Amino acid sequence: MISKIYRVSLSLLTDFYQLTMTYGYWKKNIYNKEACFNVFFRERPFKSGYAVSCGLEYVIDFLKNIKFTDDDLKYLKKLKTDNNKKIFDDEFLKFLKSFKFTCDIDAVEEGRLVFPNEPIFRVKGPLYQCQLIESAIINILNFQTLIATKSCRMNVASAGDPIFEFGLRRAQGIDGALAASRASYIGGCSSTSNVLAGKIFNIPVSGTHSHSWILSHDSEIEAFRSFSEVMPDNCILLVDTYDTLKGVENAIEIGRELKKINKKLLGIRIDSGDLSYLSKKSRKLLDKNGFEDVKIIASNDIDEFILSSLKQQKSKVTVWGIGTRLVTAYDNPSLGLVCKLSAIKENKFWIKKIKLSEQKIKINNPGILQVHRYIKEGKYDGDMIVDELINNPNSTMIHPHDSTKVKRFSKNIKYIKLLVPIFRNGKSVYKNPSILKIKKLLSSELNKIDNSIKRLHNPHLYKVGLEKKLYNEKNDMILNLRKL
Amino acid sequence: MISKIYRVSLSLLTDFYQLTMTYGYWKKNIYNKEACFNVFFRERPFKSGYAVSCGLEYVIDFLKNIKFTDDDLKYLKKLKTDNNKKIFDDEFLKFLKSFKFTCDIDAVEEGRLVFPNEPIFRVKGPLYQCQLIESAIINILNFQTLIATKSCRMNVASAGDPIFEFGLRRAQGIDGALAASRASYIGGCSSTSNVLAGKIFNIPVSGTHSHSWILSHDSEIEAFRSFSEVMPDNCILLVDTYDTLKGVENAIEIGRELKKINKKLLGIRIDSGDLSYLSKKSRKLLDKNGFEDVKIIASNDIDEFILSSLKQQKSKVTVWGIGTRLVTAYDNPSLGLVCKLSAIKENKFWIKKIKLSEQKIKINNPGILQVHRYIKEGKYDGDMIVDELINNPNSTMIHPHDSTKVKRFSKNIKYIKLLVPIFRNGKSVYKNPSILKIKKLLSSELNKIDNSIKRLHNPHLYKVGLEKKLYNEKNDMILNLRKL
Repeated sequence: MISKIYRVSLSLLTDFYQLTMTYGYWKKNIYNKEACFNVFFRERPFKSGYAVSCGLEYVIDFLKNIKFTDDDLKYLKKLKTDNNKKIFDDEFLKFLKSFKFTCDIDAVEEGRLVFPNEPIFRVKGPLYQCQLIESAIINILNFQTLIATKSCRMNVASAGDPIFEFGLRRAQGIDGALAASRASYIGGCSSTSNVLAGKIFNIPVSGTHSHSWILSHDSEIEAFRSFSEVMPDNCILLVDTYDTLKGVENAIEIGRELKKINKKLLGIRIDSGDLSYLSKKSRKLLDKNGFEDVKIIASNDIDEFILSSLKQQKSKVTVWGIGTRLVTAYDNPSLGLVCKLSAIKENKFWIKKIKLSEQKIKINNPGILQVHRYIKEGKYDGDMIVDELINNPNSTMIHPHDSTKVKRFSKNIKYIKLLVPIFRNGKSVYKNPSILKIKKLLSSELNKIDNSIKRLHNPHLYKVGLEKKLYNEKNDMILNLRKL
Repeated sequence: MISKIYRVSLSLLTDFYQLTMTYGYWKKNIYNKEACFNVFFRERPFKSGYAVSCGLEYVIDFLKNIKFTDDDLKYLKKLKTDNNKKIFDDEFLKFLKSFKFTCDIDAVEEGRLVFPNEPIFRVKGPLYQCQLIESAIINILNFQTLIATKSCRMNVASAGDPIFEFGLRRAQGIDGALAASRASYIGGCSSTSNVLAGKIFNIPVSGTHSHSWILSHDSEIEAFRSFSEVMPDNCILLVDTYDTLKGVENAIEIGRELKKINKKLLGIRIDSGDLSYLSKKSRKLLDKNGFEDVKIIASNDIDEFILSSLKQQKSKVTVWGIGTRLVTAYDNPSLGLVCKLSAIKENKFWIKKIKLSEQKIKINNPGILQVHRYIKEGKYDGDMIVDELINNPNSTMIHPHDSTKVKRFSKNIKYIKLLVPIFRNGKSVYKNPSILKIKKLLSSELNKIDNSIKRLHNPHLYKVGLEKKLYNEKNDMILNLRKL
């Protein structure tokens, strides 16, 4: 996937400190120490009740192809400190040249619902390898999970109306557009306007014409007629170049002409003005003239809140075109994903690790983490973060930041493990599902949580906690480090 | 540049409607009509007093390499309508195969200050070519201009303190990171953490170690010592893993050890907590121990407002590390760039075009547009949008949306033309300046506007207007189209 898109080696798609640290680990001969890092986010994007895991296929492709090319090494060889000393010595560059990925990866599948604090990706392996891949993994998962979540929220709000993703021109760069199209489709959109995304990811493409089509003809009706002649089977007319309701009347005239040749006007598109008022007026005009099945497509800086408000106002929009607010996650443009070291093996024993912070939310969970998602009567009942190093885990979990919030699961309740094996010893052991399968998984996930969690404003919060022993152990570690 | 990064043909990086319209123009045999499109933004990003033009080199590379590959055409051949009819016929695909870019392009150079409503990019040529390239051009310029502007604002706020760009992990996708690193550097940042961006764009890279370096050693002091041994010439220590001020004391100890071997502790980095308080306390500790020249680097969700506030509080931060808020343009993640048809040639005469809208701000300016930037006593005195089709332009300009705001330039005042030739008849006629030259151009631009325009909050507004005849002509066109 990525390897199909990028010509350059992406091994240098990393923060420089990952390389200086790798150099340090190598110099100190501790590079092969086994470590475990976990990727998670701390806060709900868009104050959403849920997020949608996305980006894993990109990450897998990145990891399958990671190797330092001669060109990469030539670049690193040239790097100097401020006082003009070489940063990396040649022996180290040789070491990088021989780089071979050997980690174990476990991750949440794309399309699954995920929540703050729980690991969505875990890497276990030689310390330096975990570091070298960290930045790219966060970059990919951070963005795609964010956009799939935004798309899902919009599609929940549209309640079955199709949403066309129109974001290419306003996205953050080329891959900001491509990856957003993929994530938007996974999140529930039914098509993209981005032809390259359609080609690469096998997503339906949609679109008909813009205002310039109208302006390049002598009149709107001529432009409509001309378009209906060249696209008789894909005729959606943009009606707001001059005056929206006059535009609808012109579209109706073309609809009549199409009927005569046994073709159909599929829809009209409104791209400005009061979408509630104009869609109702347009619907009336269309219906009065026997065009009850002509769709009304609306676009113009729509987000999930505007969409929801328009539906409450009983607007007659049937298809939504959404660009900027979707593909840039306009009101929350970064998920804030982090990757934290949680354990290191010393003399065959795992030593758990935490980083302190004045803010409790910033202290990571120690151990080799996994998530147990409990299922009760077909619905998800809560996610318990467990440490695989702890034997006989408790069936009680405690809120990560509020010890008064406790939930006990009955012993015989079923759970699934959220993190599934993706790589073992550097070899891929996971078969990527098709993008349609990912969409289906998300649909079924949404059916397994209560509607109150899907609410746009002030959603009910799905319960995520730390297994009791893990909670207590973490607490002890904090007090111990603070020497309290 | 792009062609070095991407393996896939980017010709399909376009909205689907550009292809359906091209098909229509071709079917109707009007594809070769000459047209003129202008790219501009309507609103000030971040309510900034200025924006920084960026992205042109990417666009030039895109245009130099645009051609439809067999693989692209194979994909287009497969596309079907909902009722299972082929969308494009084979003759049309042959036509695309023979595509050769032949337009004239004029654009604002990278690093120049630009303002709302004025064209920053203009394409003139066969109608279908203008359409096919539109989406990609907007995508590139929209994002890079946005980020260069954000970076410039932050660098204006830092008033000479270096800013390191740390955005890779939180950027919107891979190119969202790469292009942002480039634009941030152009906007004034002094380095990036993104090694691949450093390699591709020739940007200095920076970074030392993260918390995981500390956690992978038995104690902080051991971790510091170990780092100073492997990086004696590039030693910046992250002091906030456990307790920031104790971390500073440990760093001082290492500083002493480095002194003994004639090396220097370059800096400490604080990544959490109260940056004002901690930087002052750290400075005191460092100074008291003879480390007056050790730098204090701060990071943690900084933007231009926080930076400015920290400087007002006389924090002792000397270098700023900025990621998320910079590379995603967090508080305004899209520039809202548009591309509008402004004229079409019919029988050798240019016919000016406008699209109406209820919102006056959404009505484009007609004609073959250019911008005259007036210079008075070495400072920029105002930008006049002119239509090259209008002879003997007036020396008076009128605010685009407020006819009571008028500015008259004296006849002998000098101006420069902002749009410079980039392509003529599809051939590049422009030599890309080096990235350092672009940075220099921006510096000199900033010296040519009043400080009040650079203010973060409520800046003074630089004057941009329509040449009087153009203003009147546009007004007449609107009234005429509305039949008033």
